[in-house]
Amino acid sequence: MAEDLQTLWESYKEAVRSGGNPQALYQEMVWPALAARWKEAPNVYPRREAFAVSVHTLGTSPEATILAILGTGAERVYVLHTRESASYLERLHKETDRLIHPREIGKSDVAAIYQEVKRILDQHGDVPVALDLTSGTKAMGAGLAAAGFFFRRFYPKVRVVYVDNEDYDPELRRPQAGTERLIILQDPHEALGEVDALFAKELYGKGEFAQAARYFQKMVGATGDSRWTLYQSLAGMYEAWHGLDFPEAHKKGASLLDKLAQNVWLNHPLNQYRDLLEKQVSLLEAGKAFLEGKDLGHRKGVGAVARTLLYLSEKEERPPLAALYAYRALELLLQERLYRKGRRAEEPNLTPEERAALRDALSEILAAQASAVEVPNKLGLLHLIGLLRVLGDPLLAGKRAGELRGLVGVLQARNTNLLVHGFEVPTGKQIAPLKALAKELLAELEKELGLAVSLEPLPLGF
Amino acid sequence: MAEDLQTLWESYKEAVRSGGNPQALYQEMVWPALAARWKEAPNVYPRREAFAVSVHTLGTSPEATILAILGTGAERVYVLHTRESASYLERLHKETDRLIHPREIGKSDVAAIYQEVKRILDQHGDVPVALDLTSGTKAMGAGLAAAGFFFRRFYPKVRVVYVDNEDYDPELRRPQAGTERLIILQDPHEALGEVDALFAKELYGKGEFAQAARYFQKMVGATGDSRWTLYQSLAGMYEAWHGLDFPEAHKKGASLLDKLAQNVWLNHPLNQYRDLLEKQVSLLEAGKAFLEGKDLGHRKGVGAVARTLLYLSEKEERPPLAALYAYRALELLLQERLYRKGRRAEEPNLTPEERAALRDALSEILAAQASAVEVPNKLGLLHLIGLLRVLGDPLLAGKRAGELRGLVGVLQARNTNLLVHGFEVPTGKQIAPLKALAKELLAELEKELGLAVSLEPLPLGF
Repeated sequence: MAEDLQTLWESYKEAVRSGGNPQALYQEMVWPALAARWKEAPNVYPRREAFAVSVHTLGTSPEATILAILGTGAERVYVLHTRESASYLERLHKETDRLIHPREIGKSDVAAIYQEVKRILDQHGDVPVALDLTSGTKAMGAGLAAAGFFFRRFYPKVRVVYVDNEDYDPELRRPQAGTERLIILQDPHEALGEVDALFAKELYGKGEFAQAARYFQKMVGATGDSRWTLYQSLAGMYEAWHGLDFPEAHKKGASLLDKLAQNVWLNHPLNQYRDLLEKQVSLLEAGKAFLEGKDLGHRKGVGAVARTLLYLSEKEERPPLAALYAYRALELLLQERLYRKGRRAEEPNLTPEERAALRDALSEILAAQASAVEVPNKLGLLHLIGLLRVLGDPLLAGKRAGELRGLVGVLQARNTNLLVHGFEVPTGKQIAPLKALAKELLAELEKELGLAVSLEPLPLGF
Repeated sequence: MAEDLQTLWESYKEAVRSGGNPQALYQEMVWPALAARWKEAPNVYPRREAFAVSVHTLGTSPEATILAILGTGAERVYVLHTRESASYLERLHKETDRLIHPREIGKSDVAAIYQEVKRILDQHGDVPVALDLTSGTKAMGAGLAAAGFFFRRFYPKVRVVYVDNEDYDPELRRPQAGTERLIILQDPHEALGEVDALFAKELYGKGEFAQAARYFQKMVGATGDSRWTLYQSLAGMYEAWHGLDFPEAHKKGASLLDKLAQNVWLNHPLNQYRDLLEKQVSLLEAGKAFLEGKDLGHRKGVGAVARTLLYLSEKEERPPLAALYAYRALELLLQERLYRKGRRAEEPNLTPEERAALRDALSEILAAQASAVEVPNKLGLLHLIGLLRVLGDPLLAGKRAGELRGLVGVLQARNTNLLVHGFEVPTGKQIAPLKALAKELLAELEKELGLAVSLEPLPLGF
């Protein structure tokens, strides 16, 4: 504490002890020196910042608010006062040499504080704004703090500040002059590295895995705790998976399982969900093996990939993309069924009898003359369904032709999708029957294989 | 205020005036009745809530904290105290009949408060928690409020509370007993309907247009101000556009332009960006006309759709999807150039001489024997490029064959994409040359047409 103020304080105490009026003596003996000091060099912790705007709640201690105005140094000053504290406004103006913009509010009207702060931020949201809760009622201070920390999400240049005293003089029941400082409050995100974990969790929950992984990685540096790398791997696994990169997703998942089995990580929260993780990694492994071998006989792999495509189709909000996922899922599942009959869609090797039967089957579904139906060399989705009926596929042959008729339009529209070769954009409604059939085929495959793994991302356990 | 407490208060004032010790008399005459009242029926505004956990900062007013503990009614009670206020802990326990979990912190150590609150929330984040800032220093209260409002984003069941007094007795310089109430603070989001606009803006900025549109719609109901419907239309326009639904996007955009031109909306903030909006809507109109007419002669429309596809390819984080957008953009642009030569990719009608020349052109690009090169009836991307070179397309014929060689792999891989008919997943790196060529073609088309509209969503003006 500065020596001159210390000396003044002692003289002031002496004068109060001798029976003087503490308030009047303070104004006369102490305050002018303190205000002069702050005009020149305010005491700001952790360091002075260039605020363009400041907002202050004002109760019965105008001196503290004057210090706050001088400490923030803003050119534009708003003061939220009550009817009672309006009488101090003129003094604030005189002692700070600043135009004061007063806003009257009820002393417990927190909503009015929010409103005022929001209005001010709407006007000045792109410059640094200090919200000072030094003076005013508890309600006013809490309201200002709430507004400050809430609105930082949208206006990152807002800071909450207050004038604190390091020493309180119990004899005089007031803060000892010279020990005041304006504190600029850190927000919890800045003060606690570990808050990034919450942001990571939020992003993970929204399916934004790449960003979540980056936050988890930051956590390792911020906390020195390498358990976060396991979360980073997990988010990376889903990122690759949803990008259909099965080998990369499997690699990340398998390495995560390895780590979780190590002694040091046995208590890792993810170990609570090891069972589900193992199933998902096993699905990834199957999908990877199938895609690498391009082997439709790898039924578990076909199931894994088809399930992934259908899952992504459900999650995808844009209809043309959702359609592509669903088409490919259905195609894979049909190809797999055809493969059981020893045939391939690219080279079906139809006998003349089969070709005729397929033509009949298609004309039945299409409700058209058989002579009007073409059978190309490379079979599309509708032809695959027809051929599987001809070949006696139990599920598809078991359906009535009329039941399949509703699918004709969407099946024939695959190549006319604007994202493939055409100019059409399907709606969510149009692709619903497509998804329904794919799901039915998938369910049968999974029942057969005893697969039934949730593709939902693992809970994080925190 | 209750009558019995009012009577007690008058007797208490009388006793103080007669020279008694205000503190001691308060404890003796007033406090027991007040505490008894709160044990039975605490005064909570706006209404009592069932908190499972409460956290209190503790300064030099244990009575207020006792009321807060009774008011929140939580079974598990944490108290953040300083070294000095530790002496009150026993009293809190005795007067509330609750086990108190004390946590000592420095009186100005805001980061320690964040830390404690976070630890407590990590343990109890899924039950209602009250953070009470009634007692303690300004720093402690501000820290608790900051933590409360910050962590509500992640732990929505956290509430900030404090004990307020409606009446303050100036003679005694203390709150008048019986007028205390525990206030549960609303957060600004609940108190101000218009905060939804900020969430809408955040979502809009992230490209989550469907959700943004829903928030803007809520704003209409919450504020009764129909200017928000214009924002809802704008978000809806981008939602449809990014879903490649050009007719719907154009409809929304055109109707928005109409509204903005009406007298009542001339001052709407979006009118600041009318110029850009008009250009975007005109692009949508062109895209719509092209897609509806399937007319490759509609160059502006081809440009609009190709630009959209390339824009979405840039924004898309999943490589297989980004690849599909880019393939289709390139294909459209090549088709358009071929159309200028009077040819169509589906039916190129090649003369035998052209077929031979195409074979040569392809063998040059592929650095393979001409005899090893096949020319199918339906031309793929690589064949289109070869044919355009044969037909003397200025841009493509001007490139060296070696320059195009780097594209061969990715062009041939289109149909082997796992999302189309194959089992491969391209990487971002693989599709980079594809995008580069498409951008080059698009730039030339746009230069010719004098198009150059940003596809970035309009600023919102708030």
